[in-house]
Amino acid sequence: MISICILGSGNVAQQLVSAFEKADNIQLVQVFSRKQNAISTLSKSVSIIQDYNQLEPVDLIIIAVSDDAIVNVSEQIPFQNKLVVHTSGSVSMESLSDANRKGVFYPLQTLSKTKEINFKEVPLCIEAETNSDLKLLHQVASAISNNVYEIDSNQRKSLHIAAVFVNNFANHLFQIGKEICIEHGVSFEILKPLIFETANKINTLSPKDAQTGPAKRNDTTTINKHLDFLSNPNHKEIYKILTKSIIDNGKL
Amino acid sequence: MISICILGSGNVAQQLVSAFEKADNIQLVQVFSRKQNAISTLSKSVSIIQDYNQLEPVDLIIIAVSDDAIVNVSEQIPFQNKLVVHTSGSVSMESLSDANRKGVFYPLQTLSKTKEINFKEVPLCIEAETNSDLKLLHQVASAISNNVYEIDSNQRKSLHIAAVFVNNFANHLFQIGKEICIEHGVSFEILKPLIFETANKINTLSPKDAQTGPAKRNDTTTINKHLDFLSNPNHKEIYKILTKSIIDNGKL
Repeated sequence: MISICILGSGNVAQQLVSAFEKADNIQLVQVFSRKQNAISTLSKSVSIIQDYNQLEPVDLIIIAVSDDAIVNVSEQIPFQNKLVVHTSGSVSMESLSDANRKGVFYPLQTLSKTKEINFKEVPLCIEAETNSDLKLLHQVASAISNNVYEIDSNQRKSLHIAAVFVNNFANHLFQIGKEICIEHGVSFEILKPLIFETANKINTLSPKDAQTGPAKRNDTTTINKHLDFLSNPNHKEIYKILTKSIIDNGKL
Repeated sequence: MISICILGSGNVAQQLVSAFEKADNIQLVQVFSRKQNAISTLSKSVSIIQDYNQLEPVDLIIIAVSDDAIVNVSEQIPFQNKLVVHTSGSVSMESLSDANRKGVFYPLQTLSKTKEINFKEVPLCIEAETNSDLKLLHQVASAISNNVYEIDSNQRKSLHIAAVFVNNFANHLFQIGKEICIEHGVSFEILKPLIFETANKINTLSPKDAQTGPAKRNDTTTINKHLDFLSNPNHKEIYKILTKSIIDNGKL
């Protein structure tokens, strides 16, 4: 049985709590949260603490707070040589306090408090300073996910940035699609099956092979018609730059 | 029973052939194709023709060819006053030959020859000059899809452009994500669950509510770290413009 404390009560903390509560061989002992009721799914065997001095010396302490609070939180932990990990894609492992052993436990998924996801499918990227710590993180990660990857800080940073493109930016394009629909009085519902299929295609085709459309065909007539049609200068600019990128990519 | 001919043998033609062959109350009579074996799934009751003079006077002639060939093909049809539709998102209904009754039968989905899709879920956007033709197109569309929409040419153009954003451009962002992974020696597989969840979130949240990430938080520290990390100037430029768009959008 591996004992764990989670520091934090945001989206990631919340999802980890639910996942660990269902896992075998994991004992979630404490959750540190400034707000008493922040974790909605907590069972009675887990205590909520609000003072670092109440922390128990568990096997693994997981800091699941916003990026800019990680260093400070790591410095508040009143132990020496315990395994302390953070859950961030963009903060290096090194930045954690030197008082304890360092590691990373990064779930690469878009997590929201309200929408429960199947954690078994969430890729977990782990990193540690020693093989024995890596082994422990592997055990913990495997208890809640089928997709565990050993990833160093530099690779994790690249994954986090790639995630910004495929998640944050792709979602913003969905929003622009919706804005164009609203402007012309058509229902955004019509576009949803296309959005789902766009993602699902990645299962069977590489994005390069899945690419279609006027930019891929270098169809300047359609491209210019589209640019004339777009009234929002921001939409126009994004259309231009992504079209150019697809055309240039086709030449590689 | 409604009789139909399809002119063309590309992705859209191929998918329509499979869908109509399974549909009740539809008789697919002929497919016009320059290549004898272009349509792989064709049953024996459907003849392939290569001469417009062999066309039979069916209830509905569907032109499923590339945008720039539509007008020319519509002018080759040796009939008067038959219902002739095209399947394009960006060509206006008016541009079809005046010799016949005009209409549009636009499947809003990313169709490829090799990957069979569930046509019942493909949104079909129909348009016609008269109510009786619209009614006939509605019957035909409903025979193969559960999502039939009456959409005029201007709305269809807006949908087609919105589709470029949510499909072509989103897919290109998936490709950039893959390029970043390759550059740093990590597997693109790690990103796939995130891509699927990004699309699936649209089922329950509006894109605006689903937006997360450094741009959404206006987290300039992370944004600048990401820009420093990106080595490809094209990736950097796309990162900048989409980040700015998300930040500006948050101010609305």
